[in-house]
Amino acid sequence: MKGYTVPLSPRGIANLAPVPPWHYAGTAIAVEFFTDPEAAAATLPEGLTLDPASAGRGVATFIDWQYSSTGLEYLDPARSQYREFFVTLDALHGETPVAWCPYIYVDNDSAMARGWVQGFPKKLGAVHQTRAYAAGGPGTPVLGAGGRFAATASSSGQRIAEASITLAQRVEDPAALMSRPVVNLRHFPSLAAGTHDKPAVHELVMSVMDDPAVADAWAGTAELAFLPARSEELADLPVRRVGAGLHFDLAYTVTDLKTLAS
Amino acid sequence: MKGYTVPLSPRGIANLAPVPPWHYAGTAIAVEFFTDPEAAAATLPEGLTLDPASAGRGVATFIDWQYSSTGLEYLDPARSQYREFFVTLDALHGETPVAWCPYIYVDNDSAMARGWVQGFPKKLGAVHQTRAYAAGGPGTPVLGAGGRFAATASSSGQRIAEASITLAQRVEDPAALMSRPVVNLRHFPSLAAGTHDKPAVHELVMSVMDDPAVADAWAGTAELAFLPARSEELADLPVRRVGAGLHFDLAYTVTDLKTLAS
Amino acid sequence: MKGYTVPLSPRGIANLAPVPPWHYAGTAIAVEFFTDPEAAAATLPEGLTLDPASAGRGVATFIDWQYSSTGLEYLDPARSQYREFFVTLDALHGETPVAWCPYIYVDNDSAMARGWVQGFPKKLGAVHQTRAYAAGGPGTPVLGAGGRFAATASSSGQRIAEASITLAQRVEDPAALMSRPVVNLRHFPSLAAGTHDKPAVHELVMSVMDDPAVADAWAGTAELAFLPARSEELADLPVRRVGAGLHFDLAYTVTDLKTLAS
Amino acid sequence: MKGYTVPLSPRGIANLAPVPPWHYAGTAIAVEFFTDPEAAAATLPEGLTLDPASAGRGVATFIDWQYSSTGLEYLDPARSQYREFFVTLDALHGETPVAWCPYIYVDNDSAMARGWVQGFPKKLGAVHQTRAYAAGGPGTPVLGAGGRFAATASSSGQRIAEASITLAQRVEDPAALMSRPVVNLRHFPSLAAGTHDKPAVHELVMSVMDDPAVADAWAGTAELAFLPARSEELADLPVRRVGAGLHFDLAYTVTDLKTLAS
Repeated sequence: MKGYTVPLSPRGIANLAPVPPWHYAGTAIAVEFFTDPEAAAATLPEGLTLDPASAGRGVATFIDWQYSSTGLEYLDPARSQYREFFVTLDALHGETPVAWCPYIYVDNDSAMARGWVQGFPKKLGAVHQTRAYAAGGPGTPVLGAGGRFAATASSSGQRIAEASITLAQRVEDPAALMSRPVVNLRHFPSLAAGTHDKPAVHELVMSVMDDPAVADAWAGTAELAFLPARSEELADLPVRRVGAGLHFDLAYTVTDLKTLAS
Repeated sequence: MKGYTVPLSPRGIANLAPVPPWHYAGTAIAVEFFTDPEAAAATLPEGLTLDPASAGRGVATFIDWQYSSTGLEYLDPARSQYREFFVTLDALHGETPVAWCPYIYVDNDSAMARGWVQGFPKKLGAVHQTRAYAAGGPGTPVLGAGGRFAATASSSGQRIAEASITLAQRVEDPAALMSRPVVNLRHFPSLAAGTHDKPAVHELVMSVMDDPAVADAWAGTAELAFLPARSEELADLPVRRVGAGLHFDLAYTVTDLKTLAS
Repeated sequence: MKGYTVPLSPRGIANLAPVPPWHYAGTAIAVEFFTDPEAAAATLPEGLTLDPASAGRGVATFIDWQYSSTGLEYLDPARSQYREFFVTLDALHGETPVAWCPYIYVDNDSAMARGWVQGFPKKLGAVHQTRAYAAGGPGTPVLGAGGRFAATASSSGQRIAEASITLAQRVEDPAALMSRPVVNLRHFPSLAAGTHDKPAVHELVMSVMDDPAVADAWAGTAELAFLPARSEELADLPVRRVGAGLHFDLAYTVTDLKTLAS
Repeated sequence: MKGYTVPLSPRGIANLAPVPPWHYAGTAIAVEFFTDPEAAAATLPEGLTLDPASAGRGVATFIDWQYSSTGLEYLDPARSQYREFFVTLDALHGETPVAWCPYIYVDNDSAMARGWVQGFPKKLGAVHQTRAYAAGGPGTPVLGAGGRFAATASSSGQRIAEASITLAQRVEDPAALMSRPVVNLRHFPSLAAGTHDKPAVHELVMSVMDDPAVADAWAGTAELAFLPARSEELADLPVRRVGAGLHFDLAYTVTDLKTLAS
């Protein structure tokens, strides 16, 4: 049996995701926000603490993604493209500033499988974001000063997040946009009776991004709302105020992660 | 942090699936088929062998499911209903006749998460099956002799399976429909560099179904086709001939599984 | 060129819907409600007036449909099944009590095309409703006293309606459930400059249902909410109180309609 | 009652599409192909003839669209973005070279409604196309020489078209890409008994595109396949050979059309 994720199979091409490298390219709309520190702290796993330097700060990000491995998977766009919405919260691992991802939504099963393997707690969602087109005209914002973009996310037919940004100036130091490493909790339950509270995998891990690149980064003002929905806890993070809104393209490769604790 | 599957969260209601019990009720269309024994054998994991008594026999099943746990989840049908298509192949675990599930598709993320925990190698798919309605008329088949039903499954916009059945007689011993226990491979990869071929979880398990029930079981003739599709291996199991077609309602509860080897 | 709806084509099989008869079978969850009479009246087209005998009364209905024409279309369930949510409001056409449908949502393009032709103003939506299964168990309500069912509808990722019912007793006279004929407005715009306010088709019509049948009709108590959403006006009909909740199977055939005014 | 398409409503914001202008911006992948002239001719409506200068020539186009009217609709991307696949065939209206659109698919109801009003015979489909991202890396093709892009379309879970292109050089005269006006058949059936073959609207129209713009146009080699599917006739247009493959951004506005015959 061949393959990396399920389903393992005779030829090894049916699996949801092949063995890394996993290459990504995307366009992001991101909004910095500030929530109640205790609400943020309540989402943290053992091993992380709230970052006192920015307690309650988070980022809500929407990305139009394209994925590829070594087989030019981007030539099968029905499988390799997906949209994603996720929230990160500033935290500390020991002394290290990190970003903790409590909630994340995608519209694609391969992305969900890769996410679980990385520790991203992905659910399915419907995610959309305004795009900029080179041909211009009133059907598109400009990717530049004054350009307005919006993004929305829904889970099971319920709107959970809405964001909008108005671009003002180029980002001087785009690499700073990905400065905090993301820390996730790889978690896979046990099902045998008596072991439901003893997960088979439960380990704090730090994402490793190879060859990160950022392009066309613009910043401006933003609005953001998290909306209450059945079987969701995102709106338990009240948005008290927002910071910058950002629009940028990004790319990186995943081949590894660092285990912090298990 | 509370919850059973990801995402773990402060209140424990955001997770894709809560701790069992997981109760199921569904309507199934199933077609018995016979494929090449070597094609069937090629899908088997270590620990299973082809059943020489019925080498190459399998069942293709489409189910319109409703799921609930202890919270009357069936009152949130946008999350608790889903459609499923899967194939099982006759196999032996030691001397025990079992059913091995190489491929399975659902249209719901909670079902995908529960499936992974059970070892079902679920991918997303689009699954449909004809229904019978009590009001009768030319818009519905009869659930009885002469009633015709069809079912289809697609993965990423590609049709992978088509089945049809014509009912002829009631099934005398419906319990026999679920006589072979399903054996799955719980598999969860590692991502740290150097461990890609050393999965964190890789264990052969046997499904345990509590309180199984079957109702309204009818049998008849059938047709079945598996169709080639990119990134799928289902059609590597050629359908050489078909046996009975079945239509039945079923129900059971999952709270446990039996580990065979890890 | 052959066909009934678009696309017309050489063989006439590509069209979204063939020439009638259109046969339907479905399972319905319906909730009687009362809104502000002036809000109801504001939705009425010219030619209808509010019914003073039941001013502000309406019905919110969710249906799990199966459709077929003369080609056993129910054997292609990926195209012939769909889910629907719609609201009707009591009105008068002259002296005739009728039901006016201001808003309706389906999850299927053939259903949307047939609806437009009938004058139903269909948009796409995501609609779900609890089902009852014959095998019983905790995964399903009973279709009988005490059985609880819920239904939801969403438009573009925004929840617009939620209903739940608890069954109490059989309906004595199920035919009464479809006593008011539905009146629709067939409307198809013009696009040539200067004609945008002169629709090509704009005619008040009355639905004709051949061979109506109702089965397994149960009534009980109900809850209902219409939720505000962007680009929707359903929630402009405030639910002031609810009446009965109903669960029933239904079937009928469409081959005709009656033009009231054009 | 206010609005342009259904549903007409008190405030006029629930309709699927408002009164024009309809502004569009998109990214296109297009492949020129040659089919059997008689197969192409069989799709033509009365009033069009095959263009003898290019008999059997057509273009298969996939577009990632964004739509807006006067309300900055692109800030509601869940409603305003959609993907489209369509085929045009070279034809003549009198002496005028035109492009006739027999088949077209979109994944959005507002786009379907606008299309019907324009005479585009839209059905729902799942459409995907590779994208180019500014951040580069192995997750994206370059938008330039050597860049490879693919596109697919499916209808009801069946793949109906697959295309791929490899870019070679910039297009010198991008305006030529939209030189043939599109001719459509606005068609809306009657439903009253006895009138099923007397459509309420049946008129040959020519699209009018205001302010057309093309940007970033590249040409290269291409591959294209149309695949047989139930209830589809696209594959009745056999692809005998392909010409150029194109990648470009485009924009235009729709406010009008020209009626050729009714």
